[in-house]
Amino acid sequence: MTKSEVVKIILENHQSAPVAFGEAFAPANIALAKYWGKRDEELNLPRTPSLSVSLGQYGSHTKISQTDNGDFYMLNGQVVAADTSFARRLGLYLDLFRPDTDFFFRVETVNSIPTAAGLASSASAYAALVFALNDFFQWRLDKTALSILARLGSGSACRSVYRGFVEWQAGTAESGMDSFALPLAHTWPDLCLGLIEISSEEKPVSSRAGMKRTVQSSVLYKNWPEKVEKDLERLKTAIEKKDFALLGQTAESNALAMHATMIAAWPPLLYWLPQSLETIHKIHRLRDEGLPVFFTMDAGPNIKLLFEAKDKDDVSHQFENIKIIQPFDWAGEKT
Amino acid sequence: MTKSEVVKIILENHQSAPVAFGEAFAPANIALAKYWGKRDEELNLPRTPSLSVSLGQYGSHTKISQTDNGDFYMLNGQVVAADTSFARRLGLYLDLFRPDTDFFFRVETVNSIPTAAGLASSASAYAALVFALNDFFQWRLDKTALSILARLGSGSACRSVYRGFVEWQAGTAESGMDSFALPLAHTWPDLCLGLIEISSEEKPVSSRAGMKRTVQSSVLYKNWPEKVEKDLERLKTAIEKKDFALLGQTAESNALAMHATMIAAWPPLLYWLPQSLETIHKIHRLRDEGLPVFFTMDAGPNIKLLFEAKDKDDVSHQFENIKIIQPFDWAGEKT
Repeated sequence: MTKSEVVKIILENHQSAPVAFGEAFAPANIALAKYWGKRDEELNLPRTPSLSVSLGQYGSHTKISQTDNGDFYMLNGQVVAADTSFARRLGLYLDLFRPDTDFFFRVETVNSIPTAAGLASSASAYAALVFALNDFFQWRLDKTALSILARLGSGSACRSVYRGFVEWQAGTAESGMDSFALPLAHTWPDLCLGLIEISSEEKPVSSRAGMKRTVQSSVLYKNWPEKVEKDLERLKTAIEKKDFALLGQTAESNALAMHATMIAAWPPLLYWLPQSLETIHKIHRLRDEGLPVFFTMDAGPNIKLLFEAKDKDDVSHQFENIKIIQPFDWAGEKT
Repeated sequence: MTKSEVVKIILENHQSAPVAFGEAFAPANIALAKYWGKRDEELNLPRTPSLSVSLGQYGSHTKISQTDNGDFYMLNGQVVAADTSFARRLGLYLDLFRPDTDFFFRVETVNSIPTAAGLASSASAYAALVFALNDFFQWRLDKTALSILARLGSGSACRSVYRGFVEWQAGTAESGMDSFALPLAHTWPDLCLGLIEISSEEKPVSSRAGMKRTVQSSVLYKNWPEKVEKDLERLKTAIEKKDFALLGQTAESNALAMHATMIAAWPPLLYWLPQSLETIHKIHRLRDEGLPVFFTMDAGPNIKLLFEAKDKDDVSHQFENIKIIQPFDWAGEKT
């Protein structure tokens, strides 16, 4: 099935009456059980479910309106040149929603997180874009439909349509109509994330290409689905029982196993930089010394710490330039 | 089955007539398809076959004789204290061969490679010890029997009884009598190894403990046997056809996959240091620039380069303090 067929099904019984402009925010999200590997490259259908936590007030704010003479994109106040991969990808996505071929969009996005630095900015960007399109065209779609549309832009964007803990169910349908996100009921006010930026450079291999290479060439990938399945159960138990050690261990182990599947790909996918490894060893040392701090990583060199509010001072003392986020307690945030 | 039962079977029809002293050398070896994971902890029986290349003149030289009042060990000219793990392990191994409980050994070993730095010194040490015992007791055992005895001391030692390319066949027997090394017929005079020492410190987790943890806790380990099987076939093809790119790729991919199984263990096994990763990225950069250099790593932070004699100058120019070894061409060595 193609993306436009999916869009057609979703918009079937919805009017499309553009207003002056649409506007929306969507939070970034960090997966605790990762999305790694597609079963459908076109529709971004995953081979496994995944589970994330959203980043509260950090994400993307997008404003959309109609314009003449071709699309016009701004990202963080800068005009985006049409020949960039960012613009090409966005243009192809917007093609799915143009009322006719002469219809052009002006899209302004402001990310409160670094772009393409492994901090999942494409997730919040595509979720915010879909929200903004929904606002602009007055579709009044429900969140399930918006999650599916966001997935067509970037897989993990389907999780950014909700706040808090979110599960993306993999689904089995060829159309992907059962592959969307759902929020988990539980909150965890004491849960803290600590973003440690190792590098803000664009990563050498995109997540999309990295996943594909891993699925195709890594023998160890075969057991990844089993790993995710087990970890999802553990994470849900940890969230229900507020068992922080179980949450931290599971998230760290899941991230390391994902990187392990990449390391065993050919050519090897090594998103880690020396400083990433230094930080990992430091986290393990701190844990050996009794500080309950764990980490997760995405397809990039940056590190995201997991710890509890009670250890906030100890953790920020150990890591310079850390950005601490409490996903369930925005007022308590240190920016 | 116990080690002493195996020793009894092997020595059954062999006289044991100690002479003044026994003396022998065995080369170190570096696996191109790794030994990682045991099916029998007592007998060091592997879950998979493995394939190595010996390090020519680099290895262990051991002299053995009888002494009074307890064993006496010297390593690289230093007396080894009885309460070290080295001495305890060696003492337990020698127990297998004492004519009676009052019989004590004086063992002097000189390693021409750093101990416990991931350069497989236990392999050459136990192989040299078994050769020296064979010389001392006048057993006149064949290499298959010596390989089995060396395995009882340290798994990979069974490969150090031969020079050149060596395959350790995993075997299926409970006794391990079919689990020993055999030499490959082919040589490769132009093949070069480059040892890069990142750290000579004792590793935080021994190979023995690391293997066990990986087998028990790493979901990704399940596909390791399949990986080794494929890589062994590729390596044999590469050796037969002198296809260096295939040899290098396969060895590097095998080593990375082994580390990947460890990274996915819990607690995570991260033998890499930041400088290991820096060196790996450098190798990949050099390869992108056209220099055919690959690497392998064992359960430690050190890196072993693989390249051809024609690129020796380029490689040594890029890596300071590299130790270059031509396993099949000793005369051409740079020490």
